[in-house]
Amino acid sequence: MHDHFLYKDRISDLTRRVIETYVTSGRLQHLDHCPLPNYDIVVQLLDDLKEILYPGYRHRDWLHMGNVVYHVGDIIDRLHDRLAVQFERALCHGRGMNTGCTPEKKYAMEQLGAEKAILFLGLIPDIRRSLAFDVEAAYAGDPACKSFDEVVFCYPGLEAITVYRLAHAMNDLGIPLIPRMMSEYAHGKTGIDIHPGATIGSHFFIDHGTGVVIGETCVIGDWVKIYQGVTLGALSFPKDEKGELVRDTKRHPTIEDNVVIYANATILGGETHIGRGSVIGSSVWITKSVAPGTTVLMEPPALKLRSPNS
Amino acid sequence: MHDHFLYKDRISDLTRRVIETYVTSGRLQHLDHCPLPNYDIVVQLLDDLKEILYPGYRHRDWLHMGNVVYHVGDIIDRLHDRLAVQFERALCHGRGMNTGCTPEKKYAMEQLGAEKAILFLGLIPDIRRSLAFDVEAAYAGDPACKSFDEVVFCYPGLEAITVYRLAHAMNDLGIPLIPRMMSEYAHGKTGIDIHPGATIGSHFFIDHGTGVVIGETCVIGDWVKIYQGVTLGALSFPKDEKGELVRDTKRHPTIEDNVVIYANATILGGETHIGRGSVIGSSVWITKSVAPGTTVLMEPPALKLRSPNS
Amino acid sequence: MHDHFLYKDRISDLTRRVIETYVTSGRLQHLDHCPLPNYDIVVQLLDDLKEILYPGYRHRDWLHMGNVVYHVGDIIDRLHDRLAVQFERALCHGRGMNTGCTPEKKYAMEQLGAEKAILFLGLIPDIRRSLAFDVEAAYAGDPACKSFDEVVFCYPGLEAITVYRLAHAMNDLGIPLIPRMMSEYAHGKTGIDIHPGATIGSHFFIDHGTGVVIGETCVIGDWVKIYQGVTLGALSFPKDEKGELVRDTKRHPTIEDNVVIYANATILGGETHIGRGSVIGSSVWITKSVAPGTTVLMEPPALKLRSPNS
Repeated sequence: MHDHFLYKDRISDLTRRVIETYVTSGRLQHLDHCPLPNYDIVVQLLDDLKEILYPGYRHRDWLHMGNVVYHVGDIIDRLHDRLAVQFERALCHGRGMNTGCTPEKKYAMEQLGAEKAILFLGLIPDIRRSLAFDVEAAYAGDPACKSFDEVVFCYPGLEAITVYRLAHAMNDLGIPLIPRMMSEYAHGKTGIDIHPGATIGSHFFIDHGTGVVIGETCVIGDWVKIYQGVTLGALSFPKDEKGELVRDTKRHPTIEDNVVIYANATILGGETHIGRGSVIGSSVWITKSVAPGTTVLMEPPALKLRSPNS
Repeated sequence: MHDHFLYKDRISDLTRRVIETYVTSGRLQHLDHCPLPNYDIVVQLLDDLKEILYPGYRHRDWLHMGNVVYHVGDIIDRLHDRLAVQFERALCHGRGMNTGCTPEKKYAMEQLGAEKAILFLGLIPDIRRSLAFDVEAAYAGDPACKSFDEVVFCYPGLEAITVYRLAHAMNDLGIPLIPRMMSEYAHGKTGIDIHPGATIGSHFFIDHGTGVVIGETCVIGDWVKIYQGVTLGALSFPKDEKGELVRDTKRHPTIEDNVVIYANATILGGETHIGRGSVIGSSVWITKSVAPGTTVLMEPPALKLRSPNS
Repeated sequence: MHDHFLYKDRISDLTRRVIETYVTSGRLQHLDHCPLPNYDIVVQLLDDLKEILYPGYRHRDWLHMGNVVYHVGDIIDRLHDRLAVQFERALCHGRGMNTGCTPEKKYAMEQLGAEKAILFLGLIPDIRRSLAFDVEAAYAGDPACKSFDEVVFCYPGLEAITVYRLAHAMNDLGIPLIPRMMSEYAHGKTGIDIHPGATIGSHFFIDHGTGVVIGETCVIGDWVKIYQGVTLGALSFPKDEKGELVRDTKRHPTIEDNVVIYANATILGGETHIGRGSVIGSSVWITKSVAPGTTVLMEPPALKLRSPNS
């Protein structure tokens, strides 16, 4: 008991030593009067957005055309309030307003956040239309799939594409940081990492999906099908004269319409184009363009017979 | 302030536009008086099932033989109530009863749901016996493993196999959709995607496991060991005369007893048999059968010496 | 209704049959008066630790130098209480004290748990300094990265490395089981599986990260960069004269300073050293040492032209 009190006396010393590192070690704390977007709220926003994109499939039971308007109207109302605040925070942060903020500037950012929240919510109908095609592509592309309901409930590819289409729209509206927070949340849940900056056509299907990486400057056509472990990545990173990475080039491949890429294939480089209708086999590694209609396969591996007693 | 009210006036317009897409864009909403299984409840069911499968390891502390009967009896009671309701929903849905339901049909489905819930719970002792072998196989197969407790607490492979054994039993009872919801939940948590339809023997061990995919028609023997990134998948999908995928063939490989498959290997095709005692090396890609006792390895990769200044 | 009561009568029978397996099937239950570390609490501990490592980025908004001391002091206080209890449980368990415990032994373990909790919390400032270098390495290594804030919010590699640095410190203090519970929690969230026993230098960067496995006896230098799907694993497991795995050898590779390992490469074996400044290409499979400055690449795959009608 006595000893335990001694240990507790040391809490204030420990606290002081931790606080000291908030001054000396940069980059790991955000301590000022201009808060960042809140991660917990961003996750709630995604949850609400999915509830109105897929009504009847997620939290609320017993929805029908007679009551869905109240449920959805209520969610849209609270979405707008929260989106406006989080957008404002992201916009202030993106413009470096944590120093030199004035009441006028703050008011202007509040207005801009609210306006962009309305613009974003106005895109939901289009996003739903696009997601309906993605559901169709999943059912058409997987013989293990028993129903459209199974796609909506159980396909991590649809979850990742849903968050991508939301985050991409937000990115196009010029909102910093929040689209990446959203895509990383989806990555954590599904193992599928799609950068919000990527450009992806209609009827996109990712099956299983764990380990898929789709880089920021990828361009993907319509009716493309991708399996688990596929990387659409960068080949190498040019540096500028100061030795720092050049950040705004096309570093990731272009995948044309009707391409299928099987499990664990790796396709690298901003100048790499996979031509329309090509099939890329499992585990291959490609850094050059491929003409339309090409099938790319690995050599079969060596077999080694083992004696039964080894 | 004034502007903000203006924006708020637009909420009802936004809601109306979203609701409209519930009529026109099919497949993304479930709006009728026959609700689907509820995802949140399905997740709670899994949590309760794991609490009685592994008592003392999960939520409740201080369990001993004197009090465990109350804890477990209470969970089984609420499991039965919830399983019955969710099974009923899945059965109605699987039989297309959202149109043409009658009180008699609804009553019959309620009875069937409750009966299958009892049958399912009656399988728990057998499932526990099977999982005890899986724990044994994990400890026997990983030199980094310090204790059986570590397997139960920390092995994502055991988590995925636990959910597989539950979902497979449910699948065998003819419950639609819920087994896939469960397997997808486990996939999200562990990165291991085992279809509930797969057939898997005793003493199954998956180490690390992220990226593992085991398809619906796989047949796996006893004492099989699989590492992260292994795909047991389909080679290609035959289509019927209408151009639609044929959905009920054996599309995934057969893995016989005592096979080890190392990281990121890909084995494809319903006619591919990996013979008893074979060892499949990392990153290989196999689409043909392999005789018992075979070791399959990749060629070592090319080495390129780089000058120090390049 | 009547039938439903009949089903309910069977609950007690089901409970009895499940309880019976708690006696007969070993390894899946922990039923005694010496509880194990609690998984839910271990997850809360990690959450609190991350809140003080990255103040202003996670749950609490509006932190500044004027109020952060109260927030952090409060968290450290409750961290100490909980760490002490969980450490005590792990220490008792690791020493097999569930049999033959005495009040004196229990008191000694309580003291030891509280002492090690203080020692662990005393390491937080050093861990923060080390994590600041990891954040720097992520920004320096990824051209898609827009800011340090993005690294802290959105990089699963940083999440996994954060938990690794905490778990490794705890492991060095001789706490059993809890470090592995923590690393497995991070693995579930990020798909990155770093064993707490691994030795990792400064400025470590993992990009995307899904599927990465870093084994218990790996040794990794400074400024190493690793991409998704990379395995640093064991080649084969020697067995002792009883046929059981030998558990305390160096089984995993050594990666020297300034090495880059691209997506899905697999490097195996305790004697495998990847020399300083080497570059290991995507999807390669290596089981032998590589001299400093070497680039290892896969052969380009075979291309097969397909006729447009096939």
